[in-house]
Amino acid sequence: MTASILTGAEAALGERFRSTRRRTLGLIAPLTPEDMMVQSCPEASPAKWHLAHTAWFFESFILREFLPGYRIFNRDFEWLFNSYYQTFAHFPEKKLRSSFSRPGIEEILSYREHVDAGIERLLEVGPDREALLRIELGVNHEEQHQELLLTDILHAFSTNPLRPAYRDLGSPASNPATGPAAELSFAEFEGGLRDVGHAGNGFSFDNERPRHRTWLEPFALASRLVTCGEYAEFIADGGYKRPELWLSAGWDAVQQNGWKAPLYWSEHEGNSEDGRRIFTLRGERSLRDQATAPVGQVSYFEADAYARWAGHRLPTEFEWEVAASGLTVDGNLLESENLMPVPVGNPQQSQSPAQQWGDCWEWTASAYLGYPGFQALPGTLGEYNGKFMSGQMILRGGSCVTPKSHIRASYRNFLSPETRWQFSGIRLAKS
Amino acid sequence: MTASILTGAEAALGERFRSTRRRTLGLIAPLTPEDMMVQSCPEASPAKWHLAHTAWFFESFILREFLPGYRIFNRDFEWLFNSYYQTFAHFPEKKLRSSFSRPGIEEILSYREHVDAGIERLLEVGPDREALLRIELGVNHEEQHQELLLTDILHAFSTNPLRPAYRDLGSPASNPATGPAAELSFAEFEGGLRDVGHAGNGFSFDNERPRHRTWLEPFALASRLVTCGEYAEFIADGGYKRPELWLSAGWDAVQQNGWKAPLYWSEHEGNSEDGRRIFTLRGERSLRDQATAPVGQVSYFEADAYARWAGHRLPTEFEWEVAASGLTVDGNLLESENLMPVPVGNPQQSQSPAQQWGDCWEWTASAYLGYPGFQALPGTLGEYNGKFMSGQMILRGGSCVTPKSHIRASYRNFLSPETRWQFSGIRLAKS
Amino acid sequence: MTASILTGAEAALGERFRSTRRRTLGLIAPLTPEDMMVQSCPEASPAKWHLAHTAWFFESFILREFLPGYRIFNRDFEWLFNSYYQTFAHFPEKKLRSSFSRPGIEEILSYREHVDAGIERLLEVGPDREALLRIELGVNHEEQHQELLLTDILHAFSTNPLRPAYRDLGSPASNPATGPAAELSFAEFEGGLRDVGHAGNGFSFDNERPRHRTWLEPFALASRLVTCGEYAEFIADGGYKRPELWLSAGWDAVQQNGWKAPLYWSEHEGNSEDGRRIFTLRGERSLRDQATAPVGQVSYFEADAYARWAGHRLPTEFEWEVAASGLTVDGNLLESENLMPVPVGNPQQSQSPAQQWGDCWEWTASAYLGYPGFQALPGTLGEYNGKFMSGQMILRGGSCVTPKSHIRASYRNFLSPETRWQFSGIRLAKS
Amino acid sequence: MTASILTGAEAALGERFRSTRRRTLGLIAPLTPEDMMVQSCPEASPAKWHLAHTAWFFESFILREFLPGYRIFNRDFEWLFNSYYQTFAHFPEKKLRSSFSRPGIEEILSYREHVDAGIERLLEVGPDREALLRIELGVNHEEQHQELLLTDILHAFSTNPLRPAYRDLGSPASNPATGPAAELSFAEFEGGLRDVGHAGNGFSFDNERPRHRTWLEPFALASRLVTCGEYAEFIADGGYKRPELWLSAGWDAVQQNGWKAPLYWSEHEGNSEDGRRIFTLRGERSLRDQATAPVGQVSYFEADAYARWAGHRLPTEFEWEVAASGLTVDGNLLESENLMPVPVGNPQQSQSPAQQWGDCWEWTASAYLGYPGFQALPGTLGEYNGKFMSGQMILRGGSCVTPKSHIRASYRNFLSPETRWQFSGIRLAKS
Repeated sequence: MTASILTGAEAALGERFRSTRRRTLGLIAPLTPEDMMVQSCPEASPAKWHLAHTAWFFESFILREFLPGYRIFNRDFEWLFNSYYQTFAHFPEKKLRSSFSRPGIEEILSYREHVDAGIERLLEVGPDREALLRIELGVNHEEQHQELLLTDILHAFSTNPLRPAYRDLGSPASNPATGPAAELSFAEFEGGLRDVGHAGNGFSFDNERPRHRTWLEPFALASRLVTCGEYAEFIADGGYKRPELWLSAGWDAVQQNGWKAPLYWSEHEGNSEDGRRIFTLRGERSLRDQATAPVGQVSYFEADAYARWAGHRLPTEFEWEVAASGLTVDGNLLESENLMPVPVGNPQQSQSPAQQWGDCWEWTASAYLGYPGFQALPGTLGEYNGKFMSGQMILRGGSCVTPKSHIRASYRNFLSPETRWQFSGIRLAKS
Repeated sequence: MTASILTGAEAALGERFRSTRRRTLGLIAPLTPEDMMVQSCPEASPAKWHLAHTAWFFESFILREFLPGYRIFNRDFEWLFNSYYQTFAHFPEKKLRSSFSRPGIEEILSYREHVDAGIERLLEVGPDREALLRIELGVNHEEQHQELLLTDILHAFSTNPLRPAYRDLGSPASNPATGPAAELSFAEFEGGLRDVGHAGNGFSFDNERPRHRTWLEPFALASRLVTCGEYAEFIADGGYKRPELWLSAGWDAVQQNGWKAPLYWSEHEGNSEDGRRIFTLRGERSLRDQATAPVGQVSYFEADAYARWAGHRLPTEFEWEVAASGLTVDGNLLESENLMPVPVGNPQQSQSPAQQWGDCWEWTASAYLGYPGFQALPGTLGEYNGKFMSGQMILRGGSCVTPKSHIRASYRNFLSPETRWQFSGIRLAKS
Repeated sequence: MTASILTGAEAALGERFRSTRRRTLGLIAPLTPEDMMVQSCPEASPAKWHLAHTAWFFESFILREFLPGYRIFNRDFEWLFNSYYQTFAHFPEKKLRSSFSRPGIEEILSYREHVDAGIERLLEVGPDREALLRIELGVNHEEQHQELLLTDILHAFSTNPLRPAYRDLGSPASNPATGPAAELSFAEFEGGLRDVGHAGNGFSFDNERPRHRTWLEPFALASRLVTCGEYAEFIADGGYKRPELWLSAGWDAVQQNGWKAPLYWSEHEGNSEDGRRIFTLRGERSLRDQATAPVGQVSYFEADAYARWAGHRLPTEFEWEVAASGLTVDGNLLESENLMPVPVGNPQQSQSPAQQWGDCWEWTASAYLGYPGFQALPGTLGEYNGKFMSGQMILRGGSCVTPKSHIRASYRNFLSPETRWQFSGIRLAKS
Repeated sequence: MTASILTGAEAALGERFRSTRRRTLGLIAPLTPEDMMVQSCPEASPAKWHLAHTAWFFESFILREFLPGYRIFNRDFEWLFNSYYQTFAHFPEKKLRSSFSRPGIEEILSYREHVDAGIERLLEVGPDREALLRIELGVNHEEQHQELLLTDILHAFSTNPLRPAYRDLGSPASNPATGPAAELSFAEFEGGLRDVGHAGNGFSFDNERPRHRTWLEPFALASRLVTCGEYAEFIADGGYKRPELWLSAGWDAVQQNGWKAPLYWSEHEGNSEDGRRIFTLRGERSLRDQATAPVGQVSYFEADAYARWAGHRLPTEFEWEVAASGLTVDGNLLESENLMPVPVGNPQQSQSPAQQWGDCWEWTASAYLGYPGFQALPGTLGEYNGKFMSGQMILRGGSCVTPKSHIRASYRNFLSPETRWQFSGIRLAKS
């Protein structure tokens, strides 16, 4: 799963393990046991399940195999909190996760402590190389679920008619998304033979490897993400009513689902002058306040239609990667000081293109497929990424709920093109 | 809504109100806040919603109208906890109820206390006749939701792979459902012109009225309910594989849903000698232990097919009512000393037919339609019963989770014929 | 299946057989082989299938059993054209009937001739009583499929964007549906103990028997059916937008299916002054021309909502039957001289209530259930009616596509309450 | 739409037009008007619709625009036979095509003659370059529908329980698919920078352009397609029961659809020794007789799982194209002398890899996306290919029902990965 060199790395890995696990507990601080039960769409899981499943991962793939004398916390959890590993154990239907009122949150937290103690013991006795690699994988796995936990809570709260805020940080006036948006320009890149994929230092998932050559024609990327204000112009121009702007499957999705705006946009009832509202982890905001913030929670189909309307196109994943490969990972990510966690506008970054990291994942025009010579991890962990290589599109760059430690230039996220519950936005490209 | 005579009845009604509200709180004592979030099938609601909705009923139809100066607890609750009263307010989609993590259980309990205080105040100031009738209706409404709360929790726990028990009262050996079943005989009744429907004393719902004449041919009712052991013989005889035993829509349901046994029956994994298991509010039991208990959680289609297989038929609702009209309400109901709450066998009742009350609702061969001259309650409360008069079949007699104070000879329960999540069983009849 | 007295009846039955079979061929005269392939909704079958299935019925239940030496026309047809008789043979899924391009129409017609010849031979050699009863049943069965054939062709043509007419009889000006509608009055009937069900002379289906007693309260029936013009007023008054007028399941059906008018009503494109159009077997007509014709192709839910809006109710099936029992069968039925076949207005009948026969089937407030002591026919033919006794409502009186020879006072038609493809209309009643 | 040089090409194009139109009529010779009505799955259209739509294409995009004085055959046909061109006219739902009994087949054939005469007149008066290019496009469009017509008729006949043959050419003993299969070997290819896409001579679709560079690692392609016999070994080895062999979405498809074999494979009833049967356009054949024929009618998921089971992988579309680019188009295509039209085994081709053309389309591991710099055709014809570029996988090489004149090395077919009704097979690759 990783190609990192770990000599003398136990201490650093231990600290990374501990801080990651702590961050997970921090994320649930604003939540009640009842909040952690909600599973409001097929893509989502209850927060409690995320807590348990990430403990399960460490127990199932590390402690069971590598820690002599480890006591399984609860035999039933072996299959109860298995997500989708067919070759490990059977598992419950995903939609049943909202029925797991038992075990209760206290028991889940005890499970996590039990697992934490096991990992500490393993680090003390000195794990071998494979065990270290798996702990590193487990940490990255937990970071993915941190992002999912916040994504899922946002959806959960959006379906609660009372529309509670996950975190209310006060007046929207302090929101950097207000004010005029920076003008959009395009940064140009030369074509040629390029190497893409993970370069070999540090952790990566199997789907980022092997590094390989690809031929690129010259291209240009927009200087920032498309804003809510710009997207509102697309809507006002009949964007959701003009089939010629859409892929055929996208137009079908518009018709069947009645899409008229991004997932969390709504009309404000009873106050027409205030106009559109956008639901966020900070509660409901006005479009006016979010006008310069990047638009999120759009599907690939919407991103593609917007780009066509704008006279441009989406970048390929390799165009994105080449543009990002010289940049420092920095932006509105989960560790940012001004954690919202919401996309914000007017990025102050000195890098070009700006906003390459964080705010919203960027839909690319590339399908999620294996790289030439792709090899899934051996054994059960081979199910981690490889079996999802059909029907999905690549997203790059992370979002405001992606841990900064988690993202990199070669990182590949993937979603079905009709998916809208993620922090998924739009960067334009042109040839 | 009621024809009861209430002169000097405030005190009695007040006591009935208080004891009913207390019983609701008693029912949730074994549950955690997380348990009270689960909504595991379209028929069910979370326990927390039942708690809130029954408070909403008193607030919306009594306190708002009849208590001067009553302060609405929370304006949002007016629509949030509306179930289906189109002419009262809009209401959320039923399936969203599992997303209502907020308000939390503490706030719901405060809501109940606020409403309780309001009713006490109203009783003190002296409600008029209509207000008293509505309080009586609200009490009966709450009793219905007590039954639903337990029915829904049973389903919730049945979908939890860990299969927790709502209440574990110790060894099944103490279960009166063991031992040989009493022999089945038939009690005969004369035909003729009979009066059916509520007779005019005490509370009744609008759908039990008006009392009216009906012509009955001579008939006979089985002396007790069909047992789990008898139902197992039907299965063993290919009951679920022989289309000639089934109504056409029933056979479709068998095929489409893969029905092979009642809802909560399963094969015990890994221990074939122990055979079938039945999930109950006391946890999982063996069929052997439940053999003489009445079979429950069967659909109308299964009840009808069983009756055909047995060479008999189901009773009509009026045959049932005429047979019940002379009997004292007594049996395995929610107030029974030996509260399980599970159906039990070998009824000790001295009445004939036995088990007419409690254990399991009894499917009848009658469709749920209005009686001749039926008038729904005026106004919004007219939506309580009347608008459901299509596509449903009548059940009679109450179950082990029906409050004893709630049931009577003229009481009409109604469910779609494919419904299986209720305590719905089978009494045979013949002409 | 029948209680008719058949002494010396072979000749008459033979003539009835021949004329019925001829009429079927007459009905398909306006159709092409391609028309006879269309199956445009789940309720419908292709006309070709109706031709084959009615031959199959005579072959399977009469010739195979009663004609010595009968040669089966084609062994594959035994199951290919079986509709739903589980105990006879397996059968193809109903929706596959539109794939039966082979056998071709010529072969189907040869099949019919082969069967006709068989029945003639059987009539010559002298059938026994059971064989005669079955031929009589087969004739009635074929009459049912004549009605279905026209009902299904109307639906088939309605889904063809070119909207062809089955039969165009010239100017709508000759349509008796024009002109003002006769004023609506109510005919009153006394209550009391009445005998209902088939009286014993002539043919009847098993579901009309046994004749039995029922108690009726005094009631009144409308003097004619509800007209298209009256129904248009219901729509104009917000009929489809007011949930308080509807049964709960009916309101769900309105929402889910987007119902705004009866099945074949549409807005005329491009000519707003001409207003609504109604598609009929005579092609598309204006509402203006059909204003006094009875409204048809409404569901039970619509009939029920209309009645509630009008301040009345639907009759029960026994109210209808008692009112019809003294009347001569006469009206706009399939044999009428002025065959349209469309519902017409301003009935010239001298009987009261008028329009009791023909034009449109009349939804009743009665569920389709077995009469007290109901016995299905023995053997496979017991599947004819009995297994459909759940989830359906009774309709009475026949329609403009029901053969006159087919209908009688005790005749019970039955459909699911959401069904709209039939000629199903509305007669009001009151207590 | 094309980059072909047409100087002096009218005569050749005219002949190609005529022969293509004639071939379409030849293909329907074995069909009855009723056969041409069947639409048996969502992917398919009735044969009659194919006949009409291909005429519509010439009328709508050529005659209307380029032939002065052309008389539209029927104004209604402009939208009735529009398939999916949103910017041209509205169009009926695809599933309604099976309701188009009118216009009848004679009228459709008259429509074709009318259009043919128009094209001839246009060719006489001398079309300009754009008109010539469009006629060429129309011919290619008609060839695509020839393939679809046969594909759809195979499905139509497969759902007819009588399982008629489209063409019965006598004893299977003459089938070259019998006998042992040629041994499977791998042809190796060097990697490097390659040019792919249409080279500029002759017709091509917009999605084959622009020709562009791509980097390939060294690879090898199997010497022939996977046979039915080999695929049967995969099944016997538990291929459809082992989730580890499948993509996640593929395993879901297996479970949900109950896939156990390719689409047209079935167990022979009543004769177990004869074993599996495969339904073809020549009727039902035994697997024994088809053992060396290429397996077809498998989804991408099945092709991918087979390759994984075999220890190999599917080729990318560019690996396939580079391997094909030096080969002569020759194989079991629609013009073959020994037209079956069924896949056959033991290809006698002297080229390597063999069977690159015809027999079955070859699933590739490439998603259907636009090439770098892709430009859809201008105007309505831009909807021809571009809007389908999501959710589909590329297939290459044509099948036994693809006209030989239609296929080339750069040709891109595309289907959803779960699609099975096409002649879609498997070629293995390795790195």
